[in-house]
Amino acid sequence: MTKHLFDQAIALTPQADGTWLGRTSPAYANMVGPFGGLTAAQVLNGVLQHPQLLGEPIALTVNFAAALADGPFVVQARPARTNRSTQHWIIEMSQEGQTVITATAVTAARRKTWSLDDEPMPACPAPGDVPLPPYPGPIEFVNRYEMRPVMGCMPEVWDGTGDSSLSRLWVRDHPPRPLDFASLAAIADIFLPRVFIRRSTPVPVGTVSMTVYFHANGAQLAQCGVEYLMGQARAQAFRNGFFDHTGQLWNEEGVLLATTHQIVYYKE
Amino acid sequence: MTKHLFDQAIALTPQADGTWLGRTSPAYANMVGPFGGLTAAQVLNGVLQHPQLLGEPIALTVNFAAALADGPFVVQARPARTNRSTQHWIIEMSQEGQTVITATAVTAARRKTWSLDDEPMPACPAPGDVPLPPYPGPIEFVNRYEMRPVMGCMPEVWDGTGDSSLSRLWVRDHPPRPLDFASLAAIADIFLPRVFIRRSTPVPVGTVSMTVYFHANGAQLAQCGVEYLMGQARAQAFRNGFFDHTGQLWNEEGVLLATTHQIVYYKE
Repeated sequence: MTKHLFDQAIALTPQADGTWLGRTSPAYANMVGPFGGLTAAQVLNGVLQHPQLLGEPIALTVNFAAALADGPFVVQARPARTNRSTQHWIIEMSQEGQTVITATAVTAARRKTWSLDDEPMPACPAPGDVPLPPYPGPIEFVNRYEMRPVMGCMPEVWDGTGDSSLSRLWVRDHPPRPLDFASLAAIADIFLPRVFIRRSTPVPVGTVSMTVYFHANGAQLAQCGVEYLMGQARAQAFRNGFFDHTGQLWNEEGVLLATTHQIVYYKE
Repeated sequence: MTKHLFDQAIALTPQADGTWLGRTSPAYANMVGPFGGLTAAQVLNGVLQHPQLLGEPIALTVNFAAALADGPFVVQARPARTNRSTQHWIIEMSQEGQTVITATAVTAARRKTWSLDDEPMPACPAPGDVPLPPYPGPIEFVNRYEMRPVMGCMPEVWDGTGDSSLSRLWVRDHPPRPLDFASLAAIADIFLPRVFIRRSTPVPVGTVSMTVYFHANGAQLAQCGVEYLMGQARAQAFRNGFFDHTGQLWNEEGVLLATTHQIVYYKE
């Protein structure tokens, strides 16, 4: 059986010095360079595959230090501190000896405790009732996802008339692939740049830093199978070249699987 | 003139090998160990004081890898990548050769662009109309801040009856100190653990990772002077040992200076 394109794209080969060798994937190409979510998944995979891994991901921060060139890269994941039930990772991705990504991750063994979701999933039509945009689109990585826009997605006209940065969509891998930490990390970067939506104006953008907090454990993600996720994101501030967004990802039952934030460079 | 306690507490001494020597501050002690916000400020100061620094802070992620012991620590801040207008930092704090903090920061030269605040400050009574809790309190670092609780702060009774994790307060250094990046990073950690508020139940907690996005530049922070900041925070999920919160910090004029997130360990 051929592996899913996502699994092919995040595959890492162990090197003798303990680092990992990977490569960018044409299947997940963005307009320029790779889809940042895939890069985040590749970085996280350097931790997930690591022989010293303790527990499961709790937090991941990925800083996009430089544009990735198409081709090979090296991931170095180092457990900077290992405690009884938590582990702290420093990760760097490099190309030709130059750092292109810096990242940190926290993994932990989770225990069952009092739990509660404090951010309810918004009321939305069911995924099957939301039409799919025409396939395939011109941006290759977009074809790797089934995205059903519920509100505030791509502007219909680029005339500067936007009045909200809030958007919601149903999303899953295309073709469907059972959810896991790597694919959830990638989907956390699926949101269109908020500045496009808020201004209905396209300007050059690039994510500078993104953080994902994982609220579900691996078993809960596996239970989601190939369900859709409801993704929601909205900006809080656009200021002198950088804007942020804050986002949530729920499963179809309304369980909050991850919360995510990013700060993005924009021009003009 | 004696330096402000905050400036004394974040002071770092350069070492011959390019690292910094600092120490925990009894003035900013929490119940156990130091106030995490002060630690974040000390980490950031290793970047702010660095001779190779380019630009001003845009993003800071601090991971609390181990409990800090009272006493000296070493901060190593390394510019992993320097571009034309952005710089990516990897920072580690260690005590006796063991990593206690991992962190990343992004600094950048900002340019004036189209800007807009998309998260309005909530309507609140003026700081002078909100009474100060009695001073001094039993937790030393709390005495270093003037905190005027507007809503959802410390539970009045610890009887498990909480129904919201949202809180708002006016806050500034005590005694007042002109705002800068280091003090803003510290204040970003001022919020009480959401689990206390949501459950009205005290349980053991510890911040695992926090991120701050700086929306203001240094000149805008300096203009704030000794103004109060309006801080708002609320949780999104409490799940099996970890909860998150998302927060905002505005100045008195309602300009969003920073947004912040954290994920916190809790027991039970």
